[in-house]
Amino acid sequence: MKNYAVTIAREHGSGGRMIGKKLAESIGADFYDRELITLTAKQTGLSEAFIKDIEEKKPSSLLYSLYMGNYVPNVYDEAFIVQSNLIRTIAERGPCVIVGRCADYILKDYENCCRIFIHAPTELRAKRIVEEYGEDVKNPVAAVKRWDKKRASYYNFVTQSIWGRAQNYNMTIDSSIGIDETADMIKIYLMNMGLIG
Amino acid sequence: MKNYAVTIAREHGSGGRMIGKKLAESIGADFYDRELITLTAKQTGLSEAFIKDIEEKKPSSLLYSLYMGNYVPNVYDEAFIVQSNLIRTIAERGPCVIVGRCADYILKDYENCCRIFIHAPTELRAKRIVEEYGEDVKNPVAAVKRWDKKRASYYNFVTQSIWGRAQNYNMTIDSSIGIDETADMIKIYLMNMGLIG
Repeated sequence: MKNYAVTIAREHGSGGRMIGKKLAESIGADFYDRELITLTAKQTGLSEAFIKDIEEKKPSSLLYSLYMGNYVPNVYDEAFIVQSNLIRTIAERGPCVIVGRCADYILKDYENCCRIFIHAPTELRAKRIVEEYGEDVKNPVAAVKRWDKKRASYYNFVTQSIWGRAQNYNMTIDSSIGIDETADMIKIYLMNMGLIG
Repeated sequence: MKNYAVTIAREHGSGGRMIGKKLAESIGADFYDRELITLTAKQTGLSEAFIKDIEEKKPSSLLYSLYMGNYVPNVYDEAFIVQSNLIRTIAERGPCVIVGRCADYILKDYENCCRIFIHAPTELRAKRIVEEYGEDVKNPVAAVKRWDKKRASYYNFVTQSIWGRAQNYNMTIDSSIGIDETADMIKIYLMNMGLIG
């Protein structure tokens, strides 16, 4: 079997995690989402909550440090580096599906990588975070927009490129066709790339 | 049969026209690319060469007029309006595949519309414009980049959005998997949307 990685970037509430999980099960690949947070926490000795927050905190933390004129590599950067190395190790080890964490960029020189971006209409995502993810937020539409902004800001900062720019991905897809249907379409793309039989 | 439209935005050399044509044949839809230029030329009395150039000229022409402080609706705007109305008429009339011309934006309120963006690695596109399109250019890589810039600039100007931004499309796809394969994937997406059986 060929060694390959599928990276899934996703808008909040677009079902990216579920799609990634379905896909991984269907193609027999390892699946990493929160698992990556646990692994990074173990290696750094930092808490999982802290690692989970990297996606939100790093840019502002750095910008603030730059503004204050006292930037030195900090614990956010260190955690990011550990996580990036983990992503590379995971990709080398075997077929895998990795959700989030700028994995598409971290694996940019990795030949057998299929880069996916999942999005969906805002209203649908707002509905999903309440009904399926059970998030307790006052204004779900505002909540998903806040998340989009955070993820875009983090991605753009780390990669110096644009989150959701078609050319950064093999395929971007509006998941409102359904979770299973979207996972199936990614599987077909992988077949077309010759990564799976 | 349901009435629907597929719009195909495309990087130059990505095979967008060929993919659109294959798709239209496969699903039994009318196909519009240069055909739209001919129709617009007939309705406006302008030459086909002029209409073809709208995608390049409009923004700079407008910006120049604004700069000179003498902007008035001009022949570019008029041709654009005629073309936009034609696109709406075509979409109302029956199943169709429309390549380029900001059709995704012009049909933004059209419910049964599947919006596609096709791209491919620069080197592959540079090779295609020489070997398949027979373009006689000194530097094919520079040529495709120039086209990208023009199309992006035109789209961004007309739509006040970003050309190639995933969220503007149902699906964006790297066509290096092959022309037929890409057309097939769009067909599957249309099935998943319930637009074809």
